[in-house]
Amino acid sequence: MASTGQVIRCKAAVAWEAGKPLVMEEVDVAPPQAMEVRVKILFTSLCHTDVYFWEAKGQTPLFPRIFGHEAGGIVESVGEGVTELEPGDHVLPVFTGECKECRHCKSEESNMCDLLRINTDRGVMLNDGKSRFSIRGQPIYHFVGTSTFSEYTVVHVGCLAKINPAAPLDKVCVLSCGISTGLGATLNVAKPKKGSTVAIFGLGAVGLAAAEGARISGASRIIGVDLNANRFDEAKKFGVTEFVNPKDHDKPVHEVIAEMTNGGVDRSVECTGSVSAMISAFECVHDGWGVAVLVGVPNKDDAFKTHPMNILNEKTLKGTFFGNYKPRSDLPSVVEKYMNKELELEKFITHEVPFAEINKAFEYMLSGAGLRCIIKMDA
Amino acid sequence: MASTGQVIRCKAAVAWEAGKPLVMEEVDVAPPQAMEVRVKILFTSLCHTDVYFWEAKGQTPLFPRIFGHEAGGIVESVGEGVTELEPGDHVLPVFTGECKECRHCKSEESNMCDLLRINTDRGVMLNDGKSRFSIRGQPIYHFVGTSTFSEYTVVHVGCLAKINPAAPLDKVCVLSCGISTGLGATLNVAKPKKGSTVAIFGLGAVGLAAAEGARISGASRIIGVDLNANRFDEAKKFGVTEFVNPKDHDKPVHEVIAEMTNGGVDRSVECTGSVSAMISAFECVHDGWGVAVLVGVPNKDDAFKTHPMNILNEKTLKGTFFGNYKPRSDLPSVVEKYMNKELELEKFITHEVPFAEINKAFEYMLSGAGLRCIIKMDA
Ligand SMILES: NC(=O)c1ccc[n+]([C@@H]2O[C@H](COP(=O)([O-])OP(=O)(O)OC[C@H]3O[C@@H](n4cnc5c(N)ncnc54)[C@H](O)[C@@H]3O)[C@@H](O)[C@H]2O)c1
Ligand SMILES: NC(=O)c1ccc[n+]([C@@H]2O[C@H](COP(=O)([O-])OP(=O)(O)OC[C@H]3O[C@@H](n4cnc5c(N)ncnc54)[C@H](O)[C@@H]3O)[C@@H](O)[C@H]2O)c1
Ligand SMILES: [Zn+2]
Ligand SMILES: [Zn+2]
Ligand SMILES: [Zn+2]
Ligand SMILES: [Zn+2]
Repeated sequence: MASTGQVIRCKAAVAWEAGKPLVMEEVDVAPPQAMEVRVKILFTSLCHTDVYFWEAKGQTPLFPRIFGHEAGGIVESVGEGVTELEPGDHVLPVFTGECKECRHCKSEESNMCDLLRINTDRGVMLNDGKSRFSIRGQPIYHFVGTSTFSEYTVVHVGCLAKINPAAPLDKVCVLSCGISTGLGATLNVAKPKKGSTVAIFGLGAVGLAAAEGARISGASRIIGVDLNANRFDEAKKFGVTEFVNPKDHDKPVHEVIAEMTNGGVDRSVECTGSVSAMISAFECVHDGWGVAVLVGVPNKDDAFKTHPMNILNEKTLKGTFFGNYKPRSDLPSVVEKYMNKELELEKFITHEVPFAEINKAFEYMLSGAGLRCIIKMDA
Repeated sequence: MASTGQVIRCKAAVAWEAGKPLVMEEVDVAPPQAMEVRVKILFTSLCHTDVYFWEAKGQTPLFPRIFGHEAGGIVESVGEGVTELEPGDHVLPVFTGECKECRHCKSEESNMCDLLRINTDRGVMLNDGKSRFSIRGQPIYHFVGTSTFSEYTVVHVGCLAKINPAAPLDKVCVLSCGISTGLGATLNVAKPKKGSTVAIFGLGAVGLAAAEGARISGASRIIGVDLNANRFDEAKKFGVTEFVNPKDHDKPVHEVIAEMTNGGVDRSVECTGSVSAMISAFECVHDGWGVAVLVGVPNKDDAFKTHPMNILNEKTLKGTFFGNYKPRSDLPSVVEKYMNKELELEKFITHEVPFAEINKAFEYMLSGAGLRCIIKMDA
């Protein structure tokens, strides 16, 4: 391509300050260095993790920054040493990578690559510790190695899943974070047996994908818990059979669930980011065999606190990033699930905006309206 | 037998007050009621759990009480409806029972029987809510359904494992609590793979049995952690390869272990009862795949506290009672492990006292001297 090795000037939505609307800017995107890939982003969507780090209330502030990590795009050019991808390949960038060489990448259990695992406080590329984005020479920080709120971005090759080029990027882009995270949290980590009861805390896209995993696993009851009652209508499309709004009850939500289920659910998956929901999700599983899985991203100074007897009572507590999927090895097959109609993605996509109106996507997320908002880069 | 259906008057060591030496008394032991069994105790030993509830510092006080739950004996008589046991059978009483009918007993994962699970605050029998022990008409409370510091005791049939009569009761009595608990915590719950690294917190009998489980599993490194350096010599006999005394370090013990093991151990088993050790045991396992198992009995008002990111990092936290063994179904085969010389019990037995000197066993435990002290009832 003509642009290979050249700086590309393109549009990006830059967060100059915590909590302030993103500003559309012309940014310079440097060419990819060793083991890096420059990707033309076609579609991106907004996940709550972007919002936390943009608000920077409970997280380390790092500005100016280009957010965005749920997206689909096409390889524009590749840096030195990149052999698995070439220009034109369809890719999903992922916030946590897979080097394929470290102990985690070689372990069947872990996807927390030593080299490329999520690092929310690093705003630069690994190769030279610098940013590939600049505006009139001023560097702009990256976010979790993806920064997809830009027409072009530079990503480590280990953070890119090469997918079926026939897959529609405006749909499968949501698999690049939220939907795979929720689905995998249930299918790969909580692993409910057929006929079991499952509680899902938080009925955003991540939680509803976790519910979808429970439905696929043959759960007999799926109890959705959310503080936002508007979520309940949408959630019915996802197989959630019962609803609990903690605001409707005087007693702690884990007690409400214990009463509904004769002592507790078999599995719970927390997808809220609220530490009190994390604790409730643990305390609401049945003693003897219950498994609770945490997915939500906590604040920096949160504390998970419970009586040790709750643990001794033979409950299990686990956590997961990206639903324990290894991005390069496993994500292509999740895309195939969509292609084979085993997995519906359309119902997660409730809004669409052109790139110029990206701040609307933040408003939808903050007001709890809808699930995923697709941001179309070329519109 | 002549005594069937009659009250038996015999010797028992009664705790009249929290923390005060036990007093040898003549007690009346009522005949067993429906589903109960009266057992002649031949040997008993002291587990730290007895000591906590006798001290009653962090636990509910319930006095006067007959403690003791690690023991071996012979069935003297059986109550109505008991068909699985008859006078003369050799049995190990267990603090947590198995009704064989509830969801827990039918689950492969749980041993927390709905009817007979451990209940440290109940001092009476289930059948009539009364005690079978009395002194001149004054009822004396039971402890965890076993109360083995008495020449005769009454136990629910579901809390008795019928074992090979050829097994020496003065040895296998330690399988009735501590050794099975530690061994099972590793073999049944932590399940280390061959070649893995395992940390054991607390090198009393329970912890060393957990270490024995790690050795049997083929662990390559077994790191023992204890505040009492005297434990380290004994621990060498149990395959513990390295020692950490938290007192010798300025930094938190989970950091010391992370440095020794390139990021954390594969498995940890906590056998101390100290909530800070429970937290360290969790925080010292490797992210991605580490599993921590809690065994120690916490105080009533303890709090397990950790940053949720430690959980999100794909660590697993579990707890267990009695090493997840089902007492009636599984304990007989643990006894057979001893009979087949797959499991050595002699090295756990460091002291022996006649029943009249039972308070010495408390002194040994409180001073951290030795592991298990066998109390011989007929001596
Ligand atoms: N672990 C991972 O790999 C990973 C990946 C993606 C997202 N996440 C996290 O998953 C969480 C969900 O993301 P999302 O995009 O679906 O967000 P979302 O905002 O669409 O959904 C979160 C839902 O949780 C509800 N909620 C908040 N606090 C609650 C409480 N105390 N009790 C019950 N419900 C509560 C909200 O009302 C909302 O409906 C976020 O914390 C996000 O950061 C984690
Ligand atoms: N879950 C169960 O089913 C079950 C069954 C039996 C015993 N237990 C519990 O297991 C624990 C061990 O029992 P035991 O009989 O072996 O007791 P023990 O007193 O012989 O051994 C405990 C050891 O832990 C050490 N220790 C205490 N605090 C520590 C700390 N903060 N860091 C490191 N080491 C520490 C002590 O020095 C001691 O060596 C007790 O809490 C007991 O109540 C639980
Ligand atoms: Zn996300
Ligand atoms: Zn790796
Ligand atoms: Zn015990
Ligand atoms: Zn039962």
